[in-house]
Amino acid sequence: MNAEVSGNPFEDVAHSARFVQGNRVVPVNGFYDGAETYRIRFMLDSIGTWQYETRSTCDTLNGMSGSFECIAPSVQHRGQVVVRGVHHFAYAEGTPYYPVGTTCYTWNHQGYEQEEKTLQTLRDSPFNKIRMCVFSKHYSYSRNEPDHRPFEGSLDAGWNFTRFNPAFWHHLEERIGDLRDLGIESDLILFHPYDRWGYAKMDEASDDRYLKYAVARLSAFRNVWWSLANEWDLMRAKSEQDWDRYFKIIQECDPSQHLRSIHNCARFYDHNLPWVTHANIQNSDTSLTTKWRNQYRKPVIDDEYCYEGNVPQDWGNITGQELVKRFWDGFIRGGYVGHGKTYLHPDDVLWWSKGGVLHGTSPARIAFLRKIIEAGPGPLEPKNIGVTCAGHMENYYLAYLGPNQSARKRLTLPEDHEYRIVDTWETEISTIGGTYTGKFDIDLPGKPFTALRITRKEEA
Amino acid sequence: MNAEVSGNPFEDVAHSARFVQGNRVVPVNGFYDGAETYRIRFMLDSIGTWQYETRSTCDTLNGMSGSFECIAPSVQHRGQVVVRGVHHFAYAEGTPYYPVGTTCYTWNHQGYEQEEKTLQTLRDSPFNKIRMCVFSKHYSYSRNEPDHRPFEGSLDAGWNFTRFNPAFWHHLEERIGDLRDLGIESDLILFHPYDRWGYAKMDEASDDRYLKYAVARLSAFRNVWWSLANEWDLMRAKSEQDWDRYFKIIQECDPSQHLRSIHNCARFYDHNLPWVTHANIQNSDTSLTTKWRNQYRKPVIDDEYCYEGNVPQDWGNITGQELVKRFWDGFIRGGYVGHGKTYLHPDDVLWWSKGGVLHGTSPARIAFLRKIIEAGPGPLEPKNIGVTCAGHMENYYLAYLGPNQSARKRLTLPEDHEYRIVDTWETEISTIGGTYTGKFDIDLPGKPFTALRITRKEEA
Repeated sequence: MNAEVSGNPFEDVAHSARFVQGNRVVPVNGFYDGAETYRIRFMLDSIGTWQYETRSTCDTLNGMSGSFECIAPSVQHRGQVVVRGVHHFAYAEGTPYYPVGTTCYTWNHQGYEQEEKTLQTLRDSPFNKIRMCVFSKHYSYSRNEPDHRPFEGSLDAGWNFTRFNPAFWHHLEERIGDLRDLGIESDLILFHPYDRWGYAKMDEASDDRYLKYAVARLSAFRNVWWSLANEWDLMRAKSEQDWDRYFKIIQECDPSQHLRSIHNCARFYDHNLPWVTHANIQNSDTSLTTKWRNQYRKPVIDDEYCYEGNVPQDWGNITGQELVKRFWDGFIRGGYVGHGKTYLHPDDVLWWSKGGVLHGTSPARIAFLRKIIEAGPGPLEPKNIGVTCAGHMENYYLAYLGPNQSARKRLTLPEDHEYRIVDTWETEISTIGGTYTGKFDIDLPGKPFTALRITRKEEA
Repeated sequence: MNAEVSGNPFEDVAHSARFVQGNRVVPVNGFYDGAETYRIRFMLDSIGTWQYETRSTCDTLNGMSGSFECIAPSVQHRGQVVVRGVHHFAYAEGTPYYPVGTTCYTWNHQGYEQEEKTLQTLRDSPFNKIRMCVFSKHYSYSRNEPDHRPFEGSLDAGWNFTRFNPAFWHHLEERIGDLRDLGIESDLILFHPYDRWGYAKMDEASDDRYLKYAVARLSAFRNVWWSLANEWDLMRAKSEQDWDRYFKIIQECDPSQHLRSIHNCARFYDHNLPWVTHANIQNSDTSLTTKWRNQYRKPVIDDEYCYEGNVPQDWGNITGQELVKRFWDGFIRGGYVGHGKTYLHPDDVLWWSKGGVLHGTSPARIAFLRKIIEAGPGPLEPKNIGVTCAGHMENYYLAYLGPNQSARKRLTLPEDHEYRIVDTWETEISTIGGTYTGKFDIDLPGKPFTALRITRKEEA
């Protein structure tokens, strides 16, 4: 829609639409996209005929109406990710979604060449979710000035937070679209404390305006997740009430109700609050997943528990072996775990911040874990068979012995189960050891990072 | 001393002596050693002339007196180990003693051949302390019936707790003497819950009689430490008041005031109590040593934090690498750590319980650590130079980076210090990297288990 408006078109024009299918009415806010263009975006979620009608304080934009047919999605298109059951996720279409994420905070602020390289790497990686920031980041190994800025203005002259820069948003949308085409969820961080531009200290009205604009622009991308913050508790300028308000604004404005979470440094946000869809956690002990599951009764993703790398900082110097252990520790307790990589680089290009190429020993083992999980019958719940384990119903168990090297273990299994020994580091699965029922001892390789995949014996 | 007595000579005869040097008077209890023989043992701790005089309810034993000269000890003989400073130990002679212990709970209950084999192994090992039980142990991998029993009686007919079996005690003394000759402290466990003989559930009078008898017999061994219990909190038949009483009996009866401690399962005894000389701890996280040092203001030894081995039980299935890490974690925080080994064996001969041969990858690395510590200038106190570290005065630091693989670290050092990189697993020490003062970055190998030894530059 096009209209010429005096004043600030971002501020002075309200425009929205109501999308109607049968008795269902979905109000959707529009946004100004520059060049006298106003847009309203809505991701249809139901096949059939939809009507729409626009409303605006601008006569030109008001009262436009029409209808269209929503057709079945392509096979590739499984819809947005939603919470399913208490502790898990699925695509809207029904297939379980097991988040296997990585972290590239500002990959989308690195210019064309580097961003394309990152996408190329992601294409061949095991990751189906990426943590990334709307705003560029000022932090160790991340000092470069980005090409695009979200607002009009400049670092020297200051920003006009009432006027967005459409070029920035077009670029962001392009990258989110690229991720969508790779089947990767964009876990989009809306605020963070690592800032030299002033985005972390905007006033209340600017925060709210920014959130509404982002939601109006981006909620039609099926692969968007709203991550309200990276390390919310380090943002001194904001109160807990601010965060509650942000959540509520998004909850109210997002017609597609994308997933909403918030990431902590030391202090957890109260993930029990109703607007939080899943607990997004930073904590170095992923084996606490059971506790968090019980505490929040929501899906748990521990996305930061130290990264594989060799930087001086203790948040980024664990080995690939330790990272993979922490992945298994979380999955085996019915939760999910994300990856990050922080190897020193002569030009400070660390995957965790700027993307690029994926070195490190963990991704191949994470791919192996993902393959095992996706080959299983469904989401895993903690189970008790004598060793730390999660399972699905009464016919599938995945146990993990971690760094220990027991050469024997006693299992307690329902009748007629078979086990295979999984070497989670060498990524090998043994042949079936036999069929067992009840309490019995099994011999193990006696080496660290051994897992067991246990399945009910198939009928002959 | 010999005397024939009607009744029970263990119970019915009181005999003791007073040892006098100058104004100092030391009362020492005697004990009945069978075959109409009564003994009084005392480890002299001061050179020069000593007088003695016996006292007894039996006329034959009463009023014996005499004197003798205490001469200087041999060079090999550095005396008993005592607490020195707040958090450390030294031999009475003055040399620091750094406990590097191992655990062979019942090595002394395994018969001549196996016990000799254990001593042979210990001779070539890095260990200068051993945790061992007076009473045999009934537990996994420890079901054999011992040759000697501490009391008269039998398992079937029951024990007479008022009559000791001198053969048992002669054997124990021989083994403690063997350890002494190897320079190994006997951290002697007086009670434990793993029992099929009834020693864990004796009545109050029997407990007290046993303790007094053990102290009278053994306190003259300079290498005896009193460890009141293995896992005191699992001994349901005893109250906290019982343990306090045991400590007080030993404190009162032991003329040499050997070290006194008590080992927990889950719940710590209150190591702040005045009769506890050092905190003996079971906890899998040896990096908590700083906390315990501050809490108890006594030396800290974490003697159980999982053993190197491959048994099914989680207390005995960590790798040698993990065990060595836990050693460093404790030492680098100004504490001490003990070893144990639990590899499955076809005849259930596990070092941790029965001694024998020492397999495993940790002992060579523990020897390396001991060598570094003993080559240092003195006991280590926690220090802050930018990485986890302990040091001595302002001229020696030992830092440890643990399982992390930082390829660079920033240190803050007093002036003119030199560092060497220590590979704690490959047991290699680099040449000096240069002389540094103040804040500076150092490059590291970027591999796990790296330590730094930092010394003040010697004057040219």
